[in-house]
Amino acid sequence: MKSIHLLGATGSIGEQTLDVLANHPEEFKLVSLAYGRNTATALPYIEKFQPELISVQGTETAHELRGLLTYHPEIVTGKEGLIAVAEAGSPGDILVNAVMGSVGLPPTLKAMESGKDIAIANKETLVTAGHIVTELQRKYGVKLIPVDSEHSAIYQCLHGDAKEVEKLILTASGGSFRDKARKDLQGVTVKEALNHPNWSMGAKITVDSATMMNKGLEVIEAHWLFGVDYDDIDVVLHKESIVHSMVEYVDGSILAHLGTPDMRVPIQYALTQPSRLAIPGSRRLKLWEAGALHFEKMDYERFRALKLAIQAGREGGSAPAVLNAANEQAVAMFLEDRIRFLEIDEFVERALEEHETLTAPSLEEILEIDQKTRSSVADYSR
Amino acid sequence: MKSIHLLGATGSIGEQTLDVLANHPEEFKLVSLAYGRNTATALPYIEKFQPELISVQGTETAHELRGLLTYHPEIVTGKEGLIAVAEAGSPGDILVNAVMGSVGLPPTLKAMESGKDIAIANKETLVTAGHIVTELQRKYGVKLIPVDSEHSAIYQCLHGDAKEVEKLILTASGGSFRDKARKDLQGVTVKEALNHPNWSMGAKITVDSATMMNKGLEVIEAHWLFGVDYDDIDVVLHKESIVHSMVEYVDGSILAHLGTPDMRVPIQYALTQPSRLAIPGSRRLKLWEAGALHFEKMDYERFRALKLAIQAGREGGSAPAVLNAANEQAVAMFLEDRIRFLEIDEFVERALEEHETLTAPSLEEILEIDQKTRSSVADYSR
Repeated sequence: MKSIHLLGATGSIGEQTLDVLANHPEEFKLVSLAYGRNTATALPYIEKFQPELISVQGTETAHELRGLLTYHPEIVTGKEGLIAVAEAGSPGDILVNAVMGSVGLPPTLKAMESGKDIAIANKETLVTAGHIVTELQRKYGVKLIPVDSEHSAIYQCLHGDAKEVEKLILTASGGSFRDKARKDLQGVTVKEALNHPNWSMGAKITVDSATMMNKGLEVIEAHWLFGVDYDDIDVVLHKESIVHSMVEYVDGSILAHLGTPDMRVPIQYALTQPSRLAIPGSRRLKLWEAGALHFEKMDYERFRALKLAIQAGREGGSAPAVLNAANEQAVAMFLEDRIRFLEIDEFVERALEEHETLTAPSLEEILEIDQKTRSSVADYSR
Repeated sequence: MKSIHLLGATGSIGEQTLDVLANHPEEFKLVSLAYGRNTATALPYIEKFQPELISVQGTETAHELRGLLTYHPEIVTGKEGLIAVAEAGSPGDILVNAVMGSVGLPPTLKAMESGKDIAIANKETLVTAGHIVTELQRKYGVKLIPVDSEHSAIYQCLHGDAKEVEKLILTASGGSFRDKARKDLQGVTVKEALNHPNWSMGAKITVDSATMMNKGLEVIEAHWLFGVDYDDIDVVLHKESIVHSMVEYVDGSILAHLGTPDMRVPIQYALTQPSRLAIPGSRRLKLWEAGALHFEKMDYERFRALKLAIQAGREGGSAPAVLNAANEQAVAMFLEDRIRFLEIDEFVERALEEHETLTAPSLEEILEIDQKTRSSVADYSR
């Protein structure tokens, strides 16, 4: 029986994590859980799993929840609440970090210090603080287990050990505008950007998929997760999104992970690895139904955000934090129709140019740079 | 430094094994070697590696070789010679069995009894004596490591451990006649059959590829190698032969092995597993150059030999030995233009029908059934 702690319970990854736990009550015990304000979504899960400790965003939500519960868990709030969840339980427990944004970073570090393995779906953790996280990983001997499909694919191919690797090959669907040339992106609308061909995801990540920034962030994550140089991480266009990613070894062998688009697979694998469990009701991939899998060489000029991300990754230090914050701010402005699609890349590039990189920023410096970059980028459109 | 023994040194797999050893003199020592009569091919390798023990087919070849060598190894002959190579060296050594035909079976068993791991390229060993080989494997705690590309692919995906497997998925190119319907195969010639679209191989195996019998034999081998039920072994048509085979797990994840058609990859992996070494001068797979990978559902009526093989595998006992011997004889007759292409399947089917299956035949019974089946099938065309 594994003890699980979950940050971000009411998001897409959070809910699917709870589904995975519900499918295997003999394997997992949910000890603590954090959500923001969405009590309506959280409540049935909380009643089902009856975690000892619950963190919510504010005292109002805490009060509301208390009034609805049939049992008496500890309820905590705010950033301190997230830290309480991160520090709950015992060494060897797994913390699933599925919160969005830089708020996910401090609890990840605390959970590692308390000896937990981290199932990581929070992009900011590795993108902005990869140097801190990997140092803690060594120091405390804990695991960082990827949850998103590309990194889980690589993790599964590697069986956890990145030795004798020649290249990591991330696949990219190409996003909503994959069939358009860069010059045709000038006037694209928010609605067009949100029409992803393969996956139904949140607005931010769907736009990141269209700019290819999501793949850029994934390259940075892969660098830290697997300890592989940027020179040895390739991205290949694969419009079917059936091959989730690949590992090329020194002998020329390539191992690939294939499957249907079901996030429960990587979520569950993060919790069971290196073992596997069945997934009730999951659809099986039949390759003959897919018929053909297509691959195209990545065009780093067409997808400039990917190029910027890799440059920021190579630069290291605080550069990826700037990249990420600038992108989040710019995408938010695009979604509010305040800037054009191509301005996302431009704003990110400008933020990187204006930033003086710190070599090894502390957690506090990262969070400060994050805020500062967001407000700078907000001013670019004035 | 691993000590290697090689049966079948002058065949295609044998020579490529010697190339692999030559590429990594710091890793491997060739202790003993067996070939038939092709001294011209064997001599440079023998001089290079200077194995202590050499087995050749007859005394004439032994005499010829002795006259050409600049050093003084032990030279042995015949079936006893193969056994001497199989028993040479120490427990933990690797025997590469790359001989063709049922002559490869007795030395495999002897090598296992003497504590060697077997890198197995000899189809007959597992097809005809899977029950004996897997029993010896358990008894002596030795490894059976596949050398052909499909099984090596699966072995690499599994990292040696077939747990939590839902299905093994073997890929099949479809062979020379993959675009023809069964009714169009009536008048096909030997020359047409030997024109394989992807691989340059020997005549026998190219015909087996066209009938799909090779895939049938591989299904039987996979059953024994990985301990997986016939119900859980699928075959899918994949004309590019880039995906070498796949493993589907209980959680729906599929791991696949991809690569260029270079037999040195599986040969070397069999010798280095679970580690890997670079392969000097090997061509890397670039998926965007391939462009697309195609998959089609297998048609077991179109490729009747595959269906017969799986039936024989399920029947078990001596049935696969009959299947294999009947097929070898029938293919030889086809290559000599004595029977038509479709008669290969018919003769195999008839041999199976006429055979009274023994449940667990001994080595002697297998070799006897092999001979008897060949002579029966030779008579079918009279």
